[in-house]
Amino acid sequence: MFHENLLLTNATGKRLYERYAKELPIIDYHCHLLPREIYENREFEDIGEMWLAHDHYKWRAMRCFGIPEKYITGDASYYEKYLKFAEIFPELIGNPIYIWCALELKRYFGIEEPLNRENAEEIYRKTKARIAERHITPRYCMKVSKVELVCTTDDPADALEYHRKLRAEGADGIRILPAFRPDKAFYAEKSGFADYRTALSKAAGLPVESFRDMMDALEKRLLVFRELGSTISDNGIEDFTWRECGDDEAERIFGKAVAGEPLERTEIDGYRSAFLLEMGRMYRRNGFVMQLHIGTYQGANKSREAKIGAACGFDCTDDSTFVKSVGELLNRLTTEEALPKTILYPLNAGQMENFAVLAAGFCEGPERGKVQLGAPWWFNDQVYGIKRQFEAAANLYPIALSVGMLTDSRSFLSYPRHELYRRVLCNYFGELVERGEYFSEEEELADVIRKICHDNAKQYFGL
Amino acid sequence: MFHENLLLTNATGKRLYERYAKELPIIDYHCHLLPREIYENREFEDIGEMWLAHDHYKWRAMRCFGIPEKYITGDASYYEKYLKFAEIFPELIGNPIYIWCALELKRYFGIEEPLNRENAEEIYRKTKARIAERHITPRYCMKVSKVELVCTTDDPADALEYHRKLRAEGADGIRILPAFRPDKAFYAEKSGFADYRTALSKAAGLPVESFRDMMDALEKRLLVFRELGSTISDNGIEDFTWRECGDDEAERIFGKAVAGEPLERTEIDGYRSAFLLEMGRMYRRNGFVMQLHIGTYQGANKSREAKIGAACGFDCTDDSTFVKSVGELLNRLTTEEALPKTILYPLNAGQMENFAVLAAGFCEGPERGKVQLGAPWWFNDQVYGIKRQFEAAANLYPIALSVGMLTDSRSFLSYPRHELYRRVLCNYFGELVERGEYFSEEEELADVIRKICHDNAKQYFGL
Amino acid sequence: MFHENLLLTNATGKRLYERYAKELPIIDYHCHLLPREIYENREFEDIGEMWLAHDHYKWRAMRCFGIPEKYITGDASYYEKYLKFAEIFPELIGNPIYIWCALELKRYFGIEEPLNRENAEEIYRKTKARIAERHITPRYCMKVSKVELVCTTDDPADALEYHRKLRAEGADGIRILPAFRPDKAFYAEKSGFADYRTALSKAAGLPVESFRDMMDALEKRLLVFRELGSTISDNGIEDFTWRECGDDEAERIFGKAVAGEPLERTEIDGYRSAFLLEMGRMYRRNGFVMQLHIGTYQGANKSREAKIGAACGFDCTDDSTFVKSVGELLNRLTTEEALPKTILYPLNAGQMENFAVLAAGFCEGPERGKVQLGAPWWFNDQVYGIKRQFEAAANLYPIALSVGMLTDSRSFLSYPRHELYRRVLCNYFGELVERGEYFSEEEELADVIRKICHDNAKQYFGL
Repeated sequence: MFHENLLLTNATGKRLYERYAKELPIIDYHCHLLPREIYENREFEDIGEMWLAHDHYKWRAMRCFGIPEKYITGDASYYEKYLKFAEIFPELIGNPIYIWCALELKRYFGIEEPLNRENAEEIYRKTKARIAERHITPRYCMKVSKVELVCTTDDPADALEYHRKLRAEGADGIRILPAFRPDKAFYAEKSGFADYRTALSKAAGLPVESFRDMMDALEKRLLVFRELGSTISDNGIEDFTWRECGDDEAERIFGKAVAGEPLERTEIDGYRSAFLLEMGRMYRRNGFVMQLHIGTYQGANKSREAKIGAACGFDCTDDSTFVKSVGELLNRLTTEEALPKTILYPLNAGQMENFAVLAAGFCEGPERGKVQLGAPWWFNDQVYGIKRQFEAAANLYPIALSVGMLTDSRSFLSYPRHELYRRVLCNYFGELVERGEYFSEEEELADVIRKICHDNAKQYFGL
Repeated sequence: MFHENLLLTNATGKRLYERYAKELPIIDYHCHLLPREIYENREFEDIGEMWLAHDHYKWRAMRCFGIPEKYITGDASYYEKYLKFAEIFPELIGNPIYIWCALELKRYFGIEEPLNRENAEEIYRKTKARIAERHITPRYCMKVSKVELVCTTDDPADALEYHRKLRAEGADGIRILPAFRPDKAFYAEKSGFADYRTALSKAAGLPVESFRDMMDALEKRLLVFRELGSTISDNGIEDFTWRECGDDEAERIFGKAVAGEPLERTEIDGYRSAFLLEMGRMYRRNGFVMQLHIGTYQGANKSREAKIGAACGFDCTDDSTFVKSVGELLNRLTTEEALPKTILYPLNAGQMENFAVLAAGFCEGPERGKVQLGAPWWFNDQVYGIKRQFEAAANLYPIALSVGMLTDSRSFLSYPRHELYRRVLCNYFGELVERGEYFSEEEELADVIRKICHDNAKQYFGL
Repeated sequence: MFHENLLLTNATGKRLYERYAKELPIIDYHCHLLPREIYENREFEDIGEMWLAHDHYKWRAMRCFGIPEKYITGDASYYEKYLKFAEIFPELIGNPIYIWCALELKRYFGIEEPLNRENAEEIYRKTKARIAERHITPRYCMKVSKVELVCTTDDPADALEYHRKLRAEGADGIRILPAFRPDKAFYAEKSGFADYRTALSKAAGLPVESFRDMMDALEKRLLVFRELGSTISDNGIEDFTWRECGDDEAERIFGKAVAGEPLERTEIDGYRSAFLLEMGRMYRRNGFVMQLHIGTYQGANKSREAKIGAACGFDCTDDSTFVKSVGELLNRLTTEEALPKTILYPLNAGQMENFAVLAAGFCEGPERGKVQLGAPWWFNDQVYGIKRQFEAAANLYPIALSVGMLTDSRSFLSYPRHELYRRVLCNYFGELVERGEYFSEEEELADVIRKICHDNAKQYFGL
């Protein structure tokens, strides 16, 4: 049975969690929820939809177990997909999906038994009844989880229609903000770039005939995001070697990309360098935080991605070296006094410490934690990854300054990830206390916990 | 004194190990034992021979302690070598050699005292008497350890004489299979390549005048391995950047290599890419599993390797980036629907998580665990490395699908490595249970343990 | 309150620490203390000076908290700086600064309370009174900490004036030695190189018109260091790809560098390779140990370094691959029978295991631990980093051969870092014993502890 001591292995940690962390509201400053779904707030069909409509973590796991694609992303019903998933559940030992699902069953449905082939149907019926009985919708999940604010991830060319509606009509007291993610403008070498230029031009009401035009259009859109209350941006960096690239060269590369000509690797790097430099300046000018998500190996499994889709579980992680390239970006921006607040999310766990050290090397007043290491991202977002990051990075970067956890999720059920993070955090602090490595007053420690779990995010993003 | 709670620090783990793991037979699907020695099944001379005839782990350690080479690989007797080794034994704290030797003394000789300078002679005499008394031979060790099946590592040009004899005459009920390791054909830039071509041609009874000829010869030999019951291949990848290489270029590079001309780095990479692609197709066509051992820094200490020999302790590990090159190989094979079952063994611990993620990205039905992360290899095959891999990779790859442990050893005494692995596994599962991270039924957990320790290997390799 | 069980979580570890490690004297074979300050032995002004005059770890942390530079390296008084630091102290949970400061307050001032905003003034007064009362000076700190020997880090062109005086006049029974660090000659591409040539020429009393001249001048200076009792050298390696570089090319690059011409990357690599090869030979010829500090990303934050200074907290860590380049250096020296005793200090934690494996691959008699992995360096010198290195590297390299801890510090208060290291070591050994992974006699274990904490360093460096 599920038990409430989950992950709390020492008495101090247990007390810290119960007293100071458990009840704090959630600021989920980075996720991939769809604003339309938040707005429409439709009652879920069943646990199958809730679990398997968007979740590439589960899809990957199901493929590992050899389940046919029909029951993963194919045309089987959510009920059938759920049954297939339930069959492998007891074998997901050690995988974050196990404890995520267990927490979701407990927190949203009051179910404490471990899912398996035998009880799958019964749990299906129970959850279905509960959905109907309590009208379980996206916002229901948010409210049950004490979510205060949610920040989605949006394209600059997006009309933000649902964000406007949510702002106009309210969302049951939950604040919903967009975040600015200009990746389609960043990946100039990809096939959709020319079309994207057109979409951006239209959205901004400006011609986009040059790299400079594109930056102007992006900034015009950024101001629209800001009007809606957003202060958060997000840039993915798939592969990146810093390379000097002046305005003329940026324009030349832009021209090639728009014409659909293939770019050389040096051109891609030059363009990426110029682009990120411009975005950094723009974020700083406009009071935005810059989030950098570094080191994906997108669509490693190309033919399956082509067939089934992007963000369906075919991305992997890169082991290339990046620290000095990201460092050079921070250095250029610092030299120009143009570095915005920045959060670094390295995907490659092996480089996490390098990025923690890098972040601290660019901090300076008056901001608290101006450049910081983000919460463990994607494949690192699990008990071991979180604990390791606390242990390794608190040594390199003051963890008390961290803006804490985010879901990064496409699912409305993912808020228990904040609970997991808080449990691991309090347990880690408890261990430090019990080993004698920390012995300040409990009120001081409580204050640190409240900051990491809630207050820092509010203050840092100016929310 | 040795005690049976070794590594079992929690009650659940202890119970799991005793009840479900301890007594399972061993399938050792990858090792470097010599088929001739298995066939001849000669009684060992003494513990010195058993420990120091082939074991480069011990040789490295002895060199670290400054012991003269005479007592390592030189002309001292096994007795003298053993005495030198015994002297350093108490200082091997934290090193896997300590606990391996301790388990070997306990399991094969019933000795529980810790070896040291003082008791070295007594232990020598006791073990020598026991060898004589119980006729301790290779197969004796296997039977005592409940070994069901052993898979050696064999060159395609090998006549497999002893494998044939073992098949014909039996090996006391233990199944002995060859595995196909075409490394000599892979390293075209190395000096023995031209000679190897001749040997392969002779073995296959086919001319080897071209890259294509070589592939045909390899496939002909692969079929011979298959006739002997083998379904397992193994490729070492020392250093590797994926590079497109068409048939014509592969032929051109092959020609240069055969002529003894030095190859450019780009040619080496092109050749390696073409070779691995061909092998992948061939394995798939013929129902073989592809094992990839990735990231050795072979013969780092060149002059000592030249003097003393290969596989004598002068190899190191590479920190180069490989993930995307191996990823591209998997991607090409997937695109052609030609990807065989594949096991990835990265040597660089820092990349283990990248390879776990990569493996999961290429899994698909109907196979269970089609591409998987292998057991911690070589320098990672120790308590810390195994535990870390469980903690880190269970999060990225469902560990329940793992084909589990192998010895990778040149010694007939290495089966306690399976015991160590099982102890660490059960202890890790026990921790998960006691922290509340896993709470399915014990029978479901027992099933997972049986699969990892035995059943998965049997099913995956089709043994 | 501070308590004496700090970090000792198991009974065996506690006993081992109390009985065998706690009272051993300290050999601090690598630090950045100024010989002049040791010689002058001036009473400290206050805890502000002691903590904040040189300590870039604290400076980085203060910048992370957004404290203005005025209170970090600026013109505020030490008292004001101390107060600012005290304010953030309770938030430094998990950071090594917390426990370092706590140990420093306890060991040098008898203060057990945790520092904070409220008690900052009182602690300031208490420490100030104690400084006056006990005449707390550099050597006072050393004697309280049972320091037997200290080795500073010195430029070859340094006149070693204070080392001579210390040798002539003694230092209260503490042995003070210089170590040879020729980094200014190594970084030929940096702006100060031409001036350095002049300084070196003057110091050696030899013309430095060529690479060969420079090597002769360095060797002449090395002999001066040796006359003062030094046997220790130290080379920083910021970024390094091995590249063949014959004498003629080394001379050509030297000429360009002296003329102030910018060097190509391949020239920098060639020069670095040639330089390190020459230094290795020179160290071996003259009986010096070669320390290699590998993988800094110096002055990542260039504009701030230009404004505030080098070694002020703007350095970061590099994630580039280095193992094979350092390996090639070791290989060349081994081939010529010219490899000195060598200690490898990788800064990138992700490569620590690769370097441990590399070190073992080049060990050979008659030296014990001829090539070894150094103590966790810089960002890795903290409880987690030390523990991880024990766990990971004892498996790859016999930790019993390690020359143990060093402070690497610019502060006279840093000797409790040895205490931390010893606590973590004994606790780790205690865990091994309690898990049954080590069961030799306690006296044998005590012997290993004494060697790692003291005796190995004495023997290895020939002190």
